[in-house]
Amino acid sequence: MAIQEKLSLMIPGPTPVPEKVLQALGKHPIGHRSKDFQDLVKITTENLKWLHQTNNDVLTITGSGTAAMEAGIINSLSKGDKVICGENGKFGQRWVKVAKEFGLEVIEIGAEWGKPLNPEDFKKILEEDKQKEIKAVILTHSETSTGVINDLQMISTHIRNHKKALSIIDCVTSIGACSVPVDEWKLDIVASGSQKGYMIPPGLSFISMSEKAWQASEDSNLPKFYLNLKSYRKSLLSNSNPYTPAVNLVFALDQSLKMMREEGLENIFARHNRHKLAVSKAAKTLNLNLFADEEHLSPAVTAIATDDIDAEDFRKKIKNKFDILLAGGQDHLKGEIFRVGHLGYVNDRDIISVISAISNTLLDQKKITAQQAGEALAVASKYLK
Amino acid sequence: MAIQEKLSLMIPGPTPVPEKVLQALGKHPIGHRSKDFQDLVKITTENLKWLHQTNNDVLTITGSGTAAMEAGIINSLSKGDKVICGENGKFGQRWVKVAKEFGLEVIEIGAEWGKPLNPEDFKKILEEDKQKEIKAVILTHSETSTGVINDLQMISTHIRNHKKALSIIDCVTSIGACSVPVDEWKLDIVASGSQKGYMIPPGLSFISMSEKAWQASEDSNLPKFYLNLKSYRKSLLSNSNPYTPAVNLVFALDQSLKMMREEGLENIFARHNRHKLAVSKAAKTLNLNLFADEEHLSPAVTAIATDDIDAEDFRKKIKNKFDILLAGGQDHLKGEIFRVGHLGYVNDRDIISVISAISNTLLDQKKITAQQAGEALAVASKYLK
Repeated sequence: MAIQEKLSLMIPGPTPVPEKVLQALGKHPIGHRSKDFQDLVKITTENLKWLHQTNNDVLTITGSGTAAMEAGIINSLSKGDKVICGENGKFGQRWVKVAKEFGLEVIEIGAEWGKPLNPEDFKKILEEDKQKEIKAVILTHSETSTGVINDLQMISTHIRNHKKALSIIDCVTSIGACSVPVDEWKLDIVASGSQKGYMIPPGLSFISMSEKAWQASEDSNLPKFYLNLKSYRKSLLSNSNPYTPAVNLVFALDQSLKMMREEGLENIFARHNRHKLAVSKAAKTLNLNLFADEEHLSPAVTAIATDDIDAEDFRKKIKNKFDILLAGGQDHLKGEIFRVGHLGYVNDRDIISVISAISNTLLDQKKITAQQAGEALAVASKYLK
Repeated sequence: MAIQEKLSLMIPGPTPVPEKVLQALGKHPIGHRSKDFQDLVKITTENLKWLHQTNNDVLTITGSGTAAMEAGIINSLSKGDKVICGENGKFGQRWVKVAKEFGLEVIEIGAEWGKPLNPEDFKKILEEDKQKEIKAVILTHSETSTGVINDLQMISTHIRNHKKALSIIDCVTSIGACSVPVDEWKLDIVASGSQKGYMIPPGLSFISMSEKAWQASEDSNLPKFYLNLKSYRKSLLSNSNPYTPAVNLVFALDQSLKMMREEGLENIFARHNRHKLAVSKAAKTLNLNLFADEEHLSPAVTAIATDDIDAEDFRKKIKNKFDILLAGGQDHLKGEIFRVGHLGYVNDRDIISVISAISNTLLDQKKITAQQAGEALAVASKYLK
């Protein structure tokens, strides 16, 4: 395997994994029906609830974040149900596809990629729905493909005012990066994945289900077996799983959640916010354009539009010279943007490294002066501790 | 975590994991869209085909064996389709449930738990189906819950003679334990899971799809997204995945498949067969009753019926005193049987250890004489190298 062992993952997932977590991952597996494993399920579930700031059930499934979002949709809805899907990026687009695949009637609320969804659009359609035909609102909190964070707090207020509709939210790159107070915002279904703010490798995903969501699941007629969340809820009563879970990833989860509790929610969120500001302000100082609306920058990833530079070539230079992996643009944005992940186990050194690497590459291309490179570091340092 | 580090897993999954594989598992993750990861997907896919003895596509998904079986069923069939399900244990029973959940019309062919399915039953029903209404035959090769291996070679002959019906086979505890020559037996869909013969922790599962299965998938109208295998096939063309895969488990898979290639298929199968014979012959010498028909013992697990002994208590004694984890009976067999796993990374020492541990526990309970304990070891040694 030609793996560059020093490669620093500054992509929005998989994110860097702490050594302690890797050590837990590499332990000998234990029986998933054993008391030892049940103890682990109990502890990790409690800590997942802490991270979600909720008393709702938080279920762990073996699969990607997409599996968790699909589970949220197919467990709470029935064929022909009318739903709103927010779409301002690749992931929003994906949930439209999932909804249509399962025969839901989709009302799309879109925004240009790079712009946030407008909460007023949701308010209007939900208020006009006097017959309460809209059964759910599906949207992405942090749109990883564009680096935009949507105003979930405001949109969820409009959903609550509708009374009937459930919220089904992709929080894959927001949980663990900024506050998602599930109970305070009364979010019904919240999905996330392990290789993001959780600081563990991919393979697990998580679903928070409110009582209202469980009630809706009683009427859901979409066929499902592996992703039938009722089976997971029933097993969780005895701290178990309906099917063999990814035991070693649960070892890793246990360790990473303990580290998160040690750091504390406020510190974690503040760190992500500082890193977002450091990267975005430095980028501007380097005459780079932020792809996302500056008022709505995701705490997980900063997307940078590269007008006269080929983004793929730029990424490659940074990978080859500095062993830093940046993400490219997806779909039509390939070559148009690159994305700097600052999600999960990232420290201030990672941030100045990536800013310096970007500066050096721009210096090599004579796009900036040494003065600008220095100013970018100076601007960033304001946000570093 | 109160994990007994010396605990030996003699259960039919998770199975023991080699140190080299654990070390690969505990490496820093890499980007799943990187060239390095594509190289890994290419190599592991080639080696999976070798293990399946096939030129068919073998897809890797993040999920349990149940997810893979469900994927096989929902990708090849449509609502209302008539299928045969073989049911002679907990897993056979599960596939009946999956089929019914997705609206299939199920013809059950059953056998008493502990007995094999009768190939003649399949022959008769398939031959009588002149209208070719039966679209698939779903069955479990090695029934992990009872320690029975079904005669897949003969049953697959009858399926082939039908011409229309697909075979959808749960080979979760047979792949890597005995020969499953997918091409020779013309098996259409074969599902398996990582925590078994593959010698890696749970979290990945595998699906071999024949050209006939892909053709059937064109007509399948069951809704699916995460488990839509066409997405996996398309991504595999560029050695990639449609959704974020469990990267670290793929590192482990790469390592374990290399170890399997070094040992060689014939040696792997012979080792499992010797261990099966050693355990089952020794058990008989100890006056224990084999739960499964002796002509149809699974190479993965031996189930032992405990007439006047509480199986759960017996398992507990062996765990506490000897740090060997045995599996209990599932559902109505709980307390009635215990199961000795001899699947995956198991050596002759593991086999004599478990036989000795069983003997010692029986000696403590004055169920056998020292003479018998010695004879059990002598019988077993005939099958050990």
